[in-house]
Formats: sequence, structure tokens, C-alpha cells
Amino acid sequence: MFLNKYKVIGILGGMGPDATTDLYNNIVRKTPAAKDQDHIPALIFSNPKIPDRTASIQSGQTEEIIEYLTKSVKIIEDGGADFIVIPCNTAHQFYDEMTSAVSIPILHIVDQTADHIKREFENIQRVGLLGTSGTLKTRLYQESLKKHGIETVMVSDEVQEAYVMKAIYTFIKSGDSLSEARKLLIQAIRTLPEDAQKVVVMGCTEIPLAFKEPVHGINLVNPTMILAEAAIRESQTEI
Amino acid sequence: MFLNKYKVIGILGGMGPDATTDLYNNIVRKTPAAKDQDHIPALIFSNPKIPDRTASIQSGQTEEIIEYLTKSVKIIEDGGADFIVIPCNTAHQFYDEMTSAVSIPILHIVDQTADHIKREFENIQRVGLLGTSGTLKTRLYQESLKKHGIETVMVSDEVQEAYVMKAIYTFIKSGDSLSEARKLLIQAIRTLPEDAQKVVVMGCTEIPLAFKEPVHGINLVNPTMILAEAAIRESQTEI
Repeated sequence: MFLNKYKVIGILGGMGPDATTDLYNNIVRKTPAAKDQDHIPALIFSNPKIPDRTASIQSGQTEEIIEYLTKSVKIIEDGGADFIVIPCNTAHQFYDEMTSAVSIPILHIVDQTADHIKREFENIQRVGLLGTSGTLKTRLYQESLKKHGIETVMVSDEVQEAYVMKAIYTFIKSGDSLSEARKLLIQAIRTLPEDAQKVVVMGCTEIPLAFKEPVHGINLVNPTMILAEAAIRESQTEI
Repeated sequence: MFLNKYKVIGILGGMGPDATTDLYNNIVRKTPAAKDQDHIPALIFSNPKIPDRTASIQSGQTEEIIEYLTKSVKIIEDGGADFIVIPCNTAHQFYDEMTSAVSIPILHIVDQTADHIKREFENIQRVGLLGTSGTLKTRLYQESLKKHGIETVMVSDEVQEAYVMKAIYTFIKSGDSLSEARKLLIQAIRTLPEDAQKVVVMGCTEIPLAFKEPVHGINLVNPTMILAEAAIRESQTEI
């Protein structure tokens, strides 16, 4: 749109603000650029006032959150963005309502993740899935990956509480024990059936913080990074 | 604007993209917040396609850059922002043209810095000023601080080349020798008249990267941080 020469990435953020910066940073890092002008224009609406996603789904009171989400994507479209990405897994529960509100495409974080998995790991049939209990309960990743023919395997309820939730809430959110979190999460992955340990989807924007270094024998899939790469590709298609 | 309840911070960014993330991160860090919803909505237009500021000023060909800047602030106003901040020193050379293009206020990075200095350091008469040779040549900080009754003192041309520019271009932009950059910058400051060493303005968005830890006896003033704090204050005034 801008002077009709460049595609503009729209980002609906603020859920939370840190995931927004993380996505935008990934876009900037992954864009081949020697100077400012090689970077991609982005219109980012960080709207942290959007009601809590998990709470809205659990209470069944979704009218307010849908109003916030649809008005927010409309602001981004009206500002001139050519497509939209949303760095929040749970918000994608309202993907259909949001796409109905605008006439530009919204790249779906889980569909992009599924495409990536099928591209990178041929003949993959099932993957491990890590996430907060809240996100897993929405079955967003399970259902969306299933549509793409990919089965998901999760850890047991006991391991979920004692390892995964403890890693996220006690060690990652506090920020100072990422190595402890990493240890717990690897232990959790090791309880999965062997074939599901090979590719593991990090279905929570905070888990990747504990995996800045790769883990031998496990392919950790980071949907925020995949979304950043998809946004860069989409911005390079013809207007 | 959004649902008429909250003020929205407008950010014109992309000059460069890293300074944009830095400002937004500072806003998020400095906002007292226990949950996502306590954060401030922000509409960020990161437009890296804006022509190089220093090159435009030096060539005297300012028509194109003014068109880009004024159209960009208009997009942010139309999107519903209540005021605008711009994390780029040199873009403020076109402050009057930008304010004429919109009906919402633009907080001026140097005016905010001057107010901060007068508030924090009583009876201050002159301060040290560090920056790239390009920014210093625009005389943006020198003229704007003078209007507020604050004189600026810079290092000699020799020290500028051998210490300041070397620190920024050889050690900070490469990213791996921040301690070396810090050493050079402190040596440069030590060549200033004693009274101008007390308060030193970092008139370049990259210098603060070398000063994550404070320096004994020198008050380093960071305009990006001051602009973040000003944006938070402004967002809390009545609508």
C-alpha cells in the first residue's frame, strides 16, 4: 500500500506485548537486509486490552473478545496492511470471526506450522506437543494439525503438572532459571513414545525461551519463528 | 480511541527497526503491569522505506523524505493513535512538517530530553553530548537544548574520530565488543571540561547499548528511555 510499492505486514499483538516484540524481532532478524530500507514495512497494533483468551473461552462469554479482535484487525486493514499475522496461539480460536471481519488474508499460526512440518519432515505421522494446560484444553493445535494429517501426542497429566507447567510458571515466567526449565521440559519430552520425540511442537510462546540452544535428537518446532518466516515470504509475493 | 476507553500510543518506527523494538520494549518494561491488560495499546508503523535521514539532509533533497514522513504519521493518526513518538533523532529535523500534517501531538525527543535534564539536575548550565558525526552536524541536539537554556559541549574532532566513531562503528554495530566500546566512550567523555562530564546526553540510539551498567560519576542521559517514559505519562492523562 505505502506509495503503492511495498507490501505491509499487519501484526495484531499485545497478547502479550512480549510475544509481539519477539515476532517482530524474528521478522527483522530473518529479513536479508544490509540497510534500514531493505526491511519490510509493518503496521503493528499492540492491543493488550483484548480480554484474556483462555478465560473467555472457558467462561463461554466470547462476545466481548470477538468484538475486540474483529475491531482490532479492521484497524490494521484500514491502516493499509496487506495481510495479518497474530503472535498468540489462543486468539486463533476466533480465526473465522476475524477473517470474516476483513478482506485481507490472516496467516493461521497452526496451518503455517503444519505446512512447515510437512515440508521439513517427510512422511511424518505424529509429533509431540507441548503447551500450557489452558492451550492444550482448547485443542487448537490438536484439531488443526489433524486436518493436515498430523497426529499429536501429549505427555500424561502428571508429567504435564510436575514438569511442563512447573517449567513454564516457576522457571520461565520468573525469567532467571531457563536452564532448569530446559531440563524439566526435556525430561517431559523423554516420556513421549519414541517416534513422537523426533518432532516436538512448542505450542506456547514462552517455551522457546528455554531452548535458545538446540537439543540433540529432538527437532523443536517454534510456531512464532515459522509465522515470522511465513510473513517474510508473503511480503515478497507480487502485489 | 479503542472503544473510547484508552489512549493509544502512536509510534513511527523503522528508522531503524531495532530502535523501534528498543523503544517499545522500554515502554512495556516501564509500564506498571501485573497482566497483559494493564499494558498500553500502541499503534506502531514501522516504515523502513523512509529514505535515509542524514543523506537526505546532506543532499538538500528533502521532498521525498518529507512525503514519506508526513504520510506515515497520517496513517498512525487515522488508525486512532492519540499522540505520536518517533524513535529516531535525525527524523526530528522534519518535526514541523510532521506536526503540520496531523492534528494529534508529536512528543519531540529532544524537548523531552531537555525537560528531563532540567527536572533531574537543578541549575545545570551545560552538558556533554555524544553522537555520530552525522547527527552532530545536523545540530539538532545543540539547537534544541539551547532553546531550553542548556549549552552542549562536544569532544574535539580528533577524539570524535578516534574514540566515538570507532566505538560506534567498529565495536557497537558489530555487536561483539561492547566493553571495548564502553572503554573508548568513557575515555572520550574524560576529555570534556569537568563540569560537562557530569551529565552526558547519548545523542545516538546505539550508544546506550554500551552502557547497560552505570558509570561512576557520569550521569548518562538516554533519550530513547526518556521518550518511553514520556509516552507512558502522556497515555495516562485524561482523554
